[in-house]
Amino acid sequence: MRTMKGFKALLPVDNAISLVLDRFGDWIPGPEEVRLESGCGRVSAERVTSSVDIPPFDRSAVDGYAVRSEDTYSSSHSNPAELALKGTSEAGGAPPAGPLSRGECVEIFTGARVPDGADSVVMAEDCERLGGRVSVSKPVPRGANVSIKGEDIRTGDAILECGRVIRPWHIGVLASVGCNAVSVRRRPIIGIFSTGNELVGVGSAAGNDLSIIDSTRPMLASMASAAGCKVKDGGIVGDSSADISGNMLELASSSDAVVSIGGTSVGGKDLVPEAAKSISKEGVLFHGVAIKPGKPFGFGIVKGKPLFMLPGYPVSAMVGFEAIVLPLLRRWSGVGQAKRRVVKARMARRVPTTPGIRHYLRVRLEEAGRGLLASPITITGSGLLSSITRADGIVVIGEDYEGVEEGSEVNVELLED
Amino acid sequence: MRTMKGFKALLPVDNAISLVLDRFGDWIPGPEEVRLESGCGRVSAERVTSSVDIPPFDRSAVDGYAVRSEDTYSSSHSNPAELALKGTSEAGGAPPAGPLSRGECVEIFTGARVPDGADSVVMAEDCERLGGRVSVSKPVPRGANVSIKGEDIRTGDAILECGRVIRPWHIGVLASVGCNAVSVRRRPIIGIFSTGNELVGVGSAAGNDLSIIDSTRPMLASMASAAGCKVKDGGIVGDSSADISGNMLELASSSDAVVSIGGTSVGGKDLVPEAAKSISKEGVLFHGVAIKPGKPFGFGIVKGKPLFMLPGYPVSAMVGFEAIVLPLLRRWSGVGQAKRRVVKARMARRVPTTPGIRHYLRVRLEEAGRGLLASPITITGSGLLSSITRADGIVVIGEDYEGVEEGSEVNVELLED
Repeated sequence: MRTMKGFKALLPVDNAISLVLDRFGDWIPGPEEVRLESGCGRVSAERVTSSVDIPPFDRSAVDGYAVRSEDTYSSSHSNPAELALKGTSEAGGAPPAGPLSRGECVEIFTGARVPDGADSVVMAEDCERLGGRVSVSKPVPRGANVSIKGEDIRTGDAILECGRVIRPWHIGVLASVGCNAVSVRRRPIIGIFSTGNELVGVGSAAGNDLSIIDSTRPMLASMASAAGCKVKDGGIVGDSSADISGNMLELASSSDAVVSIGGTSVGGKDLVPEAAKSISKEGVLFHGVAIKPGKPFGFGIVKGKPLFMLPGYPVSAMVGFEAIVLPLLRRWSGVGQAKRRVVKARMARRVPTTPGIRHYLRVRLEEAGRGLLASPITITGSGLLSSITRADGIVVIGEDYEGVEEGSEVNVELLED
Repeated sequence: MRTMKGFKALLPVDNAISLVLDRFGDWIPGPEEVRLESGCGRVSAERVTSSVDIPPFDRSAVDGYAVRSEDTYSSSHSNPAELALKGTSEAGGAPPAGPLSRGECVEIFTGARVPDGADSVVMAEDCERLGGRVSVSKPVPRGANVSIKGEDIRTGDAILECGRVIRPWHIGVLASVGCNAVSVRRRPIIGIFSTGNELVGVGSAAGNDLSIIDSTRPMLASMASAAGCKVKDGGIVGDSSADISGNMLELASSSDAVVSIGGTSVGGKDLVPEAAKSISKEGVLFHGVAIKPGKPFGFGIVKGKPLFMLPGYPVSAMVGFEAIVLPLLRRWSGVGQAKRRVVKARMARRVPTTPGIRHYLRVRLEEAGRGLLASPITITGSGLLSSITRADGIVVIGEDYEGVEEGSEVNVELLED
């Protein structure tokens, strides 16, 4: 194990997650109203009950003839019931006035209102029509082919529970009871900024050949967006303690959580945790997590908001963000991200790991014999994003291991599916 | 089996899917350029290669001292190498001018440029600094702690292949090589309209008590959006053949596919397939699919665009849309939807099904003994959306079965996860 100078103890990943969730996991973003067509995929902020019956009236489920079922009870092919056609009930229109009397029927179309007095509908193909008369050649049970008023949804029925991800069929049900807006949890706002004199934004004019484009910030912003959050871009600040703490305070005021990138490993230029301590009573709750890559991960509180201090190297930042930040963001947004598909593979070679540290190996997969072979991508530093873009998946090696042996079976989380 | 009047033969679901995909599955929507921060989740429309090396120069991966490794080869704790400190190289700044000579070192920080002449970096904790001199107490291998120029990405390397879903780490890599925009497949445009004199829009003033709110259209629009499409809302048209065909033509001109809702079962008021035939040379390719619910499903071609004619009942429309329309939309958009999680359960009671027809049962799940019990939701008509909102999952019964027996094991696709 490479001991990081200054990290006295590394906090296990699960403890880091628990500490964050215990402190901030119960908060729920307030509600906002969105138009129904924008509601799918959002999380309902209230229980919705219906103020109407669906169907709003007894409705025919087929094309045919509305009848009093008792009129058909003694009918047969040799002795069909002969009914007088009283008129037509079309979808969207009114049935003929007055209740159906004995011996009468009404032509009816799918979705149309069943006239008073009728209790069932005979399908058109089971009838014979001759001018103003309809003969029914078999008995119809009471209620046949009729959707009773309120059968689908009754007034007062809950049609959407609070806290559920809204699916297309919820949109359908909400529409059917006349809701054209829905109250949803607002998206949590995540303020993200980077620190480093060497950094320039991707959109800015090309820097000199010593500057580095800040690629971690747009990457983490994408991850936060995919977890159902809004991103407030805090830009880049130089290696100045005052600028860093100023940006932290500003983002903490306008966001629900703050993410800083860079300046967290313990060394000459590592200003972020110090800046956090300088402006916050509670300061830094932990700094240094037993995760590789991603060890120089810090967590603090600024103005009552969680502050995640991530290392600047893209892969370290990505792994730390996914392991420790996303569980909180997902709980806040209520939008679970699809879990990655997991496949079994055998390790192509031995990889030593340090007990007590959770390792995230990037691996390539290839078919080999009757299964998959996972080859770890050799990297010299966690700065190398290509270790992810060239990888097919991630193998997580837990804290209890000293490594994985060549040929041993591992679970690979697929990066693309 | 309830035979639908007029459907001479029902097309098996798989044949319907193949026919649609064979005809339209090879088309790919044209490219559009989006800003990098909007690119995540979209599908790349071109292969992107890097025009720069990453890192753009030999870069230190740690805080420490840049050295000529050969100067340290004979060093030990008892006989450390003593090097003259020549200056400092900070991230974003230039190293001291001129190449490192024998016996010299440069203080260097993570991310900073390694000075010419140096080939490795000793970590700060492995050195002792005394004024202008640094003693190194163990040999450093050549290349240690240095990320070589181009090690991550070389000029000309592909950093994003065409046709891939863009992930957060692609955003990071694109940013790092200076791309602030990315070419992606444009979202396919799906025109959706409903037919029926009885329908009113959810947003409109309350209709009379005989009208029905059109809930299927917003539901299918949500499904299309979730599959990565844009929706062009064609509204509601009455039961007029001219209005229906007019709307079809208009949507076919402005969309990549047209979806009509309602008016597809074979009966007095079933105008949509007839309208399609009246305006299209190729007309209707199939009408009636061996799927339940969802049987009155039609497919045609208008102005060279696919026309999906769905039944008006919400659950029928939903099942048909998911089974037959979504495979095409997903292929077009390139965005696979997360597959539903599948669990095993035992059926709580026997459900008869019709051989030759694929059935989609909505079931509730409950814990029972050492497993899950699936109870089919009894419904009187496929109009009842509550059969979905009250369901925990879907059980698909294939065409080769005559039903499922009580107690038999089935796969349940979970609707919520």
